[in-house]
Amino acid sequence: MHCEYAQRAARAGIHVLCEKPMAVTDSECRQMIRAARQSHIKLMVAYRLHLEKANLRAVTIARSGKLGKLRMFNSTFTMQVRPGDIRTQRKMGGGSLYDIGVYCINAARYLFQDNPVEVSTFAVKGTDRRFREVDEMSGALLRFPDGRLASFVCSFGATDVSSYEIIGTKGRLQVDPAFEYVGPLVHRLTLNGETKTTRFPASDQFAAELVYFSDCIRRNREPEPSGVEGLIDVQIVQALYRSSAHRKPTLPGLRSASPNSFTRNLHLCKYAPEHHKQFPL
Amino acid sequence: MHCEYAQRAARAGIHVLCEKPMAVTDSECRQMIRAARQSHIKLMVAYRLHLEKANLRAVTIARSGKLGKLRMFNSTFTMQVRPGDIRTQRKMGGGSLYDIGVYCINAARYLFQDNPVEVSTFAVKGTDRRFREVDEMSGALLRFPDGRLASFVCSFGATDVSSYEIIGTKGRLQVDPAFEYVGPLVHRLTLNGETKTTRFPASDQFAAELVYFSDCIRRNREPEPSGVEGLIDVQIVQALYRSSAHRKPTLPGLRSASPNSFTRNLHLCKYAPEHHKQFPL
Repeated sequence: MHCEYAQRAARAGIHVLCEKPMAVTDSECRQMIRAARQSHIKLMVAYRLHLEKANLRAVTIARSGKLGKLRMFNSTFTMQVRPGDIRTQRKMGGGSLYDIGVYCINAARYLFQDNPVEVSTFAVKGTDRRFREVDEMSGALLRFPDGRLASFVCSFGATDVSSYEIIGTKGRLQVDPAFEYVGPLVHRLTLNGETKTTRFPASDQFAAELVYFSDCIRRNREPEPSGVEGLIDVQIVQALYRSSAHRKPTLPGLRSASPNSFTRNLHLCKYAPEHHKQFPL
Repeated sequence: MHCEYAQRAARAGIHVLCEKPMAVTDSECRQMIRAARQSHIKLMVAYRLHLEKANLRAVTIARSGKLGKLRMFNSTFTMQVRPGDIRTQRKMGGGSLYDIGVYCINAARYLFQDNPVEVSTFAVKGTDRRFREVDEMSGALLRFPDGRLASFVCSFGATDVSSYEIIGTKGRLQVDPAFEYVGPLVHRLTLNGETKTTRFPASDQFAAELVYFSDCIRRNREPEPSGVEGLIDVQIVQALYRSSAHRKPTLPGLRSASPNSFTRNLHLCKYAPEHHKQFPL
């Protein structure tokens, strides 16, 4: 659906802010990117956490060297979906990896500032009638360059949890909750055995996206969570499902990977959260 | 080394309390179990957390149904080992899965009260000179019956972390720290959006083991973390290393698995922690 509507908008000269996951397949993402380029419109993928302060601060900490050399990222994202929810419909791009696993994948990428080179997953279909068409739950391992590992588990059939931790040779940062847009997000930073807790009050993440996207259009700049950013995550999700189907680790084959596609993250700080308070929805 | 010494002790009629991991291979564990049976001595594997209150309480919560149907277990166990440490020597049974991964495996088993049916791992050798002989770090996925998943990451080359969480359809229990014997262990139990924190003061876990093992000898009872319990974990560790070597998920093939081998866990509560306070080392 995203692909068709994005292309129709592009043909009409309308800029596109597209929800995540960008589309269901690699091929659809490429068509969207091509359509945007041909029509000279802006295409942004709505990764709201790229404009959220707790996550941007986590990127700053990860980059700062405070944690030492980064070694691993672990994440859990679970919720209970209602029967018949769009997330449980295969033709609508349903499935736990597409809808919520993509947050874990994207977070591993913005914290490591890199892309995975090998992925493996165990998917669980379960016997719950809600999940006749899609996986209920998936556990994933992602190998990153420089001997770094990411692991996550995402589920549509468990109580609400949204968290990650990043662990280095010298320190650990836990963010829990990490992916919510209601209520505060919380950091627990442990260095030398001392833990410091920081609460980030809830902010309007969607307003920040809109303000930033408008700025990109008005100033003729490419949005930072670009089509390529969305494409890479979809390629990784597809690789994870292939790994599950073929019962073996898979190379995501990110032919489109631009290692610098998210190095501008920190420039977005100005949009989160103070800036958009002046522009309430 | 464990295998040789346990067999020599058995031949001399001496009871054996053996550190974890029980041995390096499935075959060694079986030899130890056979030797103990033939010599009518008691053989116990020193899983200190089977006699530790925070972990026993976690088992009680997991079994109680408070969390709903259990869906996943996630764990992190990391530390920095010194160069030349025995844990980095292959012939001494070194490697992160043998030494600390075994805690995560054992915890998943005592919390799920079950054994995994399929496992997958990504091992990291790294370029650090400490890890020329063994893996520095491993990430693992374990599939359990009834569509449950366990994931963990263990490392010898990262800051100190020892934690797990168990998530059900209705609640989440985090234990962090979970595997330490110095300092308190902490529960965070989240039900209906409310989180309750419980601190379990440090107790002498080793004294509890000795008192319990002595009782088993004096009363002629089989110790609960038996040789079979140790064997199953070694079989799983070997399956995880095979998965890494062959780059594919592996069936642990637990021919010796007794599903009831840890159902007596809760009887051990009386040894932890009040009981052994009367018997300080």
